[in-house]
Amino acid sequence: MKSLPPPSHDKVLFTPGPLTTSLSVKQAMLHDAGSWHWEFNDLVRSIRHRILALAGLPTGAQWECILLQGSGTFGVEAVLASVVPPHGKVLVHANGAYGERALLMLQHHRTAAVPWRTPENVVPDATELDRLLAEDPTITHVVAIHCETTTGILNPVETLGPVVRRHGRVFIVDAMSSFGALPLDFDQGGIDYLISSANKCLEGVPGFSFVIGRRPDLEATAGWARSLSLDLLGQLRGFDKNGQFRYTPPTHSILAFDQALRELDAEGGPAARGARYQRNHTVLLEGMRSLGFRSYLPAAVQSCIITSFLFPPDPAFTFDGFYRRLSEKGHIIYPGKISQADTFRIGSIGRIFESDVRALVHAVRESIAEMGVTRLAPPA
Amino acid sequence: MKSLPPPSHDKVLFTPGPLTTSLSVKQAMLHDAGSWHWEFNDLVRSIRHRILALAGLPTGAQWECILLQGSGTFGVEAVLASVVPPHGKVLVHANGAYGERALLMLQHHRTAAVPWRTPENVVPDATELDRLLAEDPTITHVVAIHCETTTGILNPVETLGPVVRRHGRVFIVDAMSSFGALPLDFDQGGIDYLISSANKCLEGVPGFSFVIGRRPDLEATAGWARSLSLDLLGQLRGFDKNGQFRYTPPTHSILAFDQALRELDAEGGPAARGARYQRNHTVLLEGMRSLGFRSYLPAAVQSCIITSFLFPPDPAFTFDGFYRRLSEKGHIIYPGKISQADTFRIGSIGRIFESDVRALVHAVRESIAEMGVTRLAPPA
Repeated sequence: MKSLPPPSHDKVLFTPGPLTTSLSVKQAMLHDAGSWHWEFNDLVRSIRHRILALAGLPTGAQWECILLQGSGTFGVEAVLASVVPPHGKVLVHANGAYGERALLMLQHHRTAAVPWRTPENVVPDATELDRLLAEDPTITHVVAIHCETTTGILNPVETLGPVVRRHGRVFIVDAMSSFGALPLDFDQGGIDYLISSANKCLEGVPGFSFVIGRRPDLEATAGWARSLSLDLLGQLRGFDKNGQFRYTPPTHSILAFDQALRELDAEGGPAARGARYQRNHTVLLEGMRSLGFRSYLPAAVQSCIITSFLFPPDPAFTFDGFYRRLSEKGHIIYPGKISQADTFRIGSIGRIFESDVRALVHAVRESIAEMGVTRLAPPA
Repeated sequence: MKSLPPPSHDKVLFTPGPLTTSLSVKQAMLHDAGSWHWEFNDLVRSIRHRILALAGLPTGAQWECILLQGSGTFGVEAVLASVVPPHGKVLVHANGAYGERALLMLQHHRTAAVPWRTPENVVPDATELDRLLAEDPTITHVVAIHCETTTGILNPVETLGPVVRRHGRVFIVDAMSSFGALPLDFDQGGIDYLISSANKCLEGVPGFSFVIGRRPDLEATAGWARSLSLDLLGQLRGFDKNGQFRYTPPTHSILAFDQALRELDAEGGPAARGARYQRNHTVLLEGMRSLGFRSYLPAAVQSCIITSFLFPPDPAFTFDGFYRRLSEKGHIIYPGKISQADTFRIGSIGRIFESDVRALVHAVRESIAEMGVTRLAPPA
């Protein structure tokens, strides 16, 4: 690469994030904003309101959006470290790495946790949740992951939430990789807290996550937080006090996010964005199938966000070789994260379009030919 | 502002950060990098090595630099939440908000803490520390802030460290606003852990902090972390494993930081940068004094990073009015944070030069004239 002229654009990211973003989103970062200055804090306030509007929640009501520095994981941990009382107990559904990560957080907090594991290609069953909650009245909170990017499975959180609510427990939804593209009804879904991030379907750059929750619920958590930086109520009170982040905000990520929200509006909002991702996914799946690849998940539970493909059962195939060839052709894919099968992943989100997906599929065809891979699908 | 053409550049930030950065640092963010991709992770590795070199520490030895998502506060909390054993006790020197913040973190962690408070304009005395440590052998760790930006005071951490070491305790230094411009000798200063941030004297953009510590010390903390996101050893093991951040990194901030480090080299390294900041501070102090302003700190303990000025004792002076007038003229200053006096603060760091400081002083002169402020210095 050293002796070649640089390409006209960055390699395209077919990943679960950070994603390919628009040039105009990145250009919004060509400014330095003062974190104490009213212009910047007006922007922060506006972003918090616009996220609530995207969630279908009215501003001025009980709902609040709290921005938090760091990656999405920091947002999830902030909820678990802040809203669970000292003697709380948390049931965590896990059919992938993100459920497992929530369990790991609770272990670090020395908070009681109940894992509810299902296989990575199986969605949780609401009647089973009903039984688990009926059996253990000491469970105070339930955590579920909307789109598990470990596989790309879409968990039916809207059928779980009403069960959680009927049992009077608190429902926490990690909607990291779905918010802004896949619909979620807070009321029907019985969602108490939702966490997502700047650099997923909203197509901003990484730097912060956000949490949506009700103010009275948050006010009731005073004194519970196990971390200062991750204290959700503390962060809300900071915004209340003077519109500011308590600690240095990622000012450039915030400027980029403002532009990203404008571009979401210009695209037609979450429904239009979700439709684009669905087209990307459909073109990807058809293209990869036409080459002989098989996807890991049954169609019924597959999201349009990211797709896991099985390694071809051909000894000429290696993930490293495949990845490098695609990278040389300008496409970045993602490794698998599944414990039960050898897979790689291809994301459909970010500032990418059908034409990008078609170019990727073409590069996949070339790459496997170069590698001498001929057997693609496992024996039926 | 709506009807005026936009100015040719952003308002200049005379703050403790986020700072004014070079256009070329911001332009480095006009790319989307894949967080799993080797090119990006080679850059992360290089940045970790270059920070150790800036600290005067050899690579390949026991020292490690760990990058962490979030603001500098997240870095300080990561150290306190990770390297203090369950029954540890931490002595924290506090002569400003950042010492108090460390105490607040320990309170959230339910970790035993001993505040060692001195007035905001008084530096800590090593003989007093000697007495405190001799009196309480259960103290395991000592925290000190190098430059307390609450006032701008420079605490003599290099005289405290040898005392901490003689008593066999662990010494943690928050060098957030000094690292990269003011010298600190790890060995002479007996420093075990140092925390700083991307968006201070290294003139990157916000998004991550970094911690320097010895690998064997970190390895000995296994199982202690009270947070997953802020688990320092966990983060190091992530870098060890595959060169990656465990959770989504602020890719754009990292790209900007790489460029910021190149520009630090081009400027002549930390000594040259410190000299520029010192000139900025000298020009500021002389200019403000010539207008009749008084600075809060005695010269002997004043750093060149940020300067607190006393409010003029004239009823026509209000901070809000003063701030707004300076903002309209293109200069952003910072409010005071001192409990013992009414002050405002002016930073000398970031991509600013003597000419910027002179323009600011001129704008200060105009602003107080517009406000009708005539009495500037308090009665002697």
